Amino acid sequence: MDDIKLDYTNMMASVVGEYGIHEDELEALRPQSEEIHHYLMTRRENGFLPFYELPFNTKILEEISTLVEEIGGRYENVVVLGIGGSALGTIALAQALCPLYHNLMDSGQRGGRPRLFVLDNVDPMGFSQALDILDPARTLYLVISKSGSTVETMCQFLIARERMEKALGAGYREHFILITDPISGPLRRLAESEGFRSFSIPERVGGRFSVFTAVGLLPLALVGVNVQALLQGAIAMSERVTEPDIMKNPAYLNAALQFLAYRKGLKISVMMPYSDRLRDMSDWFRQIWAESLGKKNGLTGDLLHIGPTPVKALGTTDQHSQVQLYVEGPFDKSVTFLIPENYGADLIIPAYPPAPSLSYLEGKSMADLIRSEQQATEVALTKNGRPNCTISIPEVTPETLGALVYMFEVQTIFAGGLFKVNPLDQPGVEEGKEFTYALMGRPGFEKKKDEFERWYNDIRRRSL
Amino acid sequence: MDDIKLDYTNMMASVVGEYGIHEDELEALRPQSEEIHHYLMTRRENGFLPFYELPFNTKILEEISTLVEEIGGRYENVVVLGIGGSALGTIALAQALCPLYHNLMDSGQRGGRPRLFVLDNVDPMGFSQALDILDPARTLYLVISKSGSTVETMCQFLIARERMEKALGAGYREHFILITDPISGPLRRLAESEGFRSFSIPERVGGRFSVFTAVGLLPLALVGVNVQALLQGAIAMSERVTEPDIMKNPAYLNAALQFLAYRKGLKISVMMPYSDRLRDMSDWFRQIWAESLGKKNGLTGDLLHIGPTPVKALGTTDQHSQVQLYVEGPFDKSVTFLIPENYGADLIIPAYPPAPSLSYLEGKSMADLIRSEQQATEVALTKNGRPNCTISIPEVTPETLGALVYMFEVQTIFAGGLFKVNPLDQPGVEEGKEFTYALMGRPGFEKKKDEFERWYNDIRRRSL
Repeated sequence: MDDIKLDYTNMMASVVGEYGIHEDELEALRPQSEEIHHYLMTRRENGFLPFYELPFNTKILEEISTLVEEIGGRYENVVVLGIGGSALGTIALAQALCPLYHNLMDSGQRGGRPRLFVLDNVDPMGFSQALDILDPARTLYLVISKSGSTVETMCQFLIARERMEKALGAGYREHFILITDPISGPLRRLAESEGFRSFSIPERVGGRFSVFTAVGLLPLALVGVNVQALLQGAIAMSERVTEPDIMKNPAYLNAALQFLAYRKGLKISVMMPYSDRLRDMSDWFRQIWAESLGKKNGLTGDLLHIGPTPVKALGTTDQHSQVQLYVEGPFDKSVTFLIPENYGADLIIPAYPPAPSLSYLEGKSMADLIRSEQQATEVALTKNGRPNCTISIPEVTPETLGALVYMFEVQTIFAGGLFKVNPLDQPGVEEGKEFTYALMGRPGFEKKKDEFERWYNDIRRRSL
Repeated sequence: MDDIKLDYTNMMASVVGEYGIHEDELEALRPQSEEIHHYLMTRRENGFLPFYELPFNTKILEEISTLVEEIGGRYENVVVLGIGGSALGTIALAQALCPLYHNLMDSGQRGGRPRLFVLDNVDPMGFSQALDILDPARTLYLVISKSGSTVETMCQFLIARERMEKALGAGYREHFILITDPISGPLRRLAESEGFRSFSIPERVGGRFSVFTAVGLLPLALVGVNVQALLQGAIAMSERVTEPDIMKNPAYLNAALQFLAYRKGLKISVMMPYSDRLRDMSDWFRQIWAESLGKKNGLTGDLLHIGPTPVKALGTTDQHSQVQLYVEGPFDKSVTFLIPENYGADLIIPAYPPAPSLSYLEGKSMADLIRSEQQATEVALTKNGRPNCTISIPEVTPETLGALVYMFEVQTIFAGGLFKVNPLDQPGVEEGKEFTYALMGRPGFEKKKDEFERWYNDIRRRSL
């Protein structure tokens, strides 16, 4: 059992009032939910939703463990060149499952494992500062792009590749592993023509659903995460999230709660872990939720442009930044707390007689404090009529994180059905890509350049 | 001149249509704006808005530079214990103004300056992992709390203090500097009774407006930021943001644009720097904007609960995560791009004949790419009717960042007037604090414990 718990007490109207959800609203979703469930199961059987099967793929585990054994100790640095779905799962899970100061430890403290750098931007200052601290001879690059042509990642790759060849000569190729489409695209062709080692991202697995492929598993395994346990956690969750009854399926139920909250005007969905290690799960979730559900769909009116806005927050930190707004501001958001029941460490607060006004803390622990603060914030929100729910995991482990990721993936796919959008595409980013190609002079995009000019330079610009 | 530019072309209805702003709407704000301006200037003259004067305080610069000279080279680690306004300015400005991998460099590369750790949470795992990597003899703690009683910071302090005393004996006191109220509170009393070195946060300067006091200046100076230049930048901005005419004052104008956008239902305000170094400016802004404006005010109806929700994004990274939603989702947000005109470094994209389909990138630079992507995203949003504006700074320097921070501070205070809220208080977080005290057994909060029970344990809990 994965033991992940979804507590939705404070999503209900009986507790939070006007903006809460009524039992009968959940009930009313049953027929539609059953339809969506059957649709998903049929799509799955027919091979159109392969993300469901990824945790069951033991072959990839063998490939990766063979590779890690062969080369794992050889490098001081593993560098991911990738963006969006090629980066966010690795960032979130490394933050959760490596020591928090992994990169600051010396090699012995890291058990001989490499440091991890995920370079997911193209700021020339940021990228050149990264290259400056990476010893070419001790660095392995994982170049990750499903299409094999993502412009940011290709730009990084071309620059890093040249540097490495200059530093290391022909043997530089061993320092690159390409993770891309099994058949097509520039990276796949380079793997074939230039002999780079490569891994495939299975067909029909989109970037934001790819963390259980080599995209996430390889970098995580290289830095010491037990990726087998990660997949076992996902498998342990798989039964719960294929249960047809929304009241028994945490992924479906949470999707339904979020959908109903959205319909009541709570269009912002805050994810607020109370845990340093779970901090970046919000960034991973932010992508899968926003990019899957933020769509122009086939409907009209208010439903033409749809999609909840996920917001990242961190407890207790953001109590001193965002909670004022959450408690008193507009009724336009729900909050999902994400908490580990056990923090895996604790610190007792000692006495300090010169500060008598702090003596109430004596003998309590830091875990007592962070738990109290989460519960206090929960009750403050609830009392002020602000819907919120809590997802708890027993402890931050590869198993629980694997289960959590799998649950959120299914939740997202199911929510696509409720919101009546295709959760697997992202047509709205195509136009920006085309304008970028036009500005970068890629052949075939000349007309887009003209259009850009009309919107950028041919209008009266106003500035101060 | 600070040369910060606010380009608001794409906020206007003439460009983006329905959700854009009309000239006459800006004009109509003039009388109210003049009133707010005069109110602010009067409050300022009477000493109620001392944040305005902070950059002009040369005395603090002398004190800090004396201290840095005395002890700066002695430490390998500077650790800030603080949360919210005691942490976010330092995090944002260190990210902008220190080398990005400052903490990974060896002492020589850092010019003998210490590493910086800002510990702004009470996760026992996170805090104990931090303590484990900090050599007591080489570590300086800055304990920052205006009230001197912030529970998270006091908990950290009590634990770290005991560790340091055990490791270093009576001399441990030299490893702590307290930054707190000039007169009252537990930290101030400890500074007096125990002889800890201390700095004062001037009266009436709230946490989120305190970055130009010792709160931000001391840690930044210790790690090598030119804090004098930072304040000079703020001073250079001060004239522009005290200009009465909203059409000539970038702080007032941006507040007005954001206010009008909010009134049109764009209640989410995304800040999206295209720069690794400017990344955490969004977190600092998120606090000042949300906590100052997210309020229950004296009005009724839709205006009873008010406040824009600031959202952090990063370009180009979030083009692969959030932009799908921004382009196609509901019309509920505006985007503010934050860009440096000069990235301070550049990398030319080299040729790579084995990948002919990437040859269009050859000879272009990474700065060309990130600029093209920002402009492409800007035009994609604009074409889809999504209001957006761009704040540009010539380069990321202490001067420009000082100017930017000062501009946003004035923008926030002025926006308080437009939204008709008190931007200096945060009544909505008091209740959560009281529930925390009750749960932690602080004397005087017994009744709050009973109330907590009613909301937490005495209701039917629903979970799965």
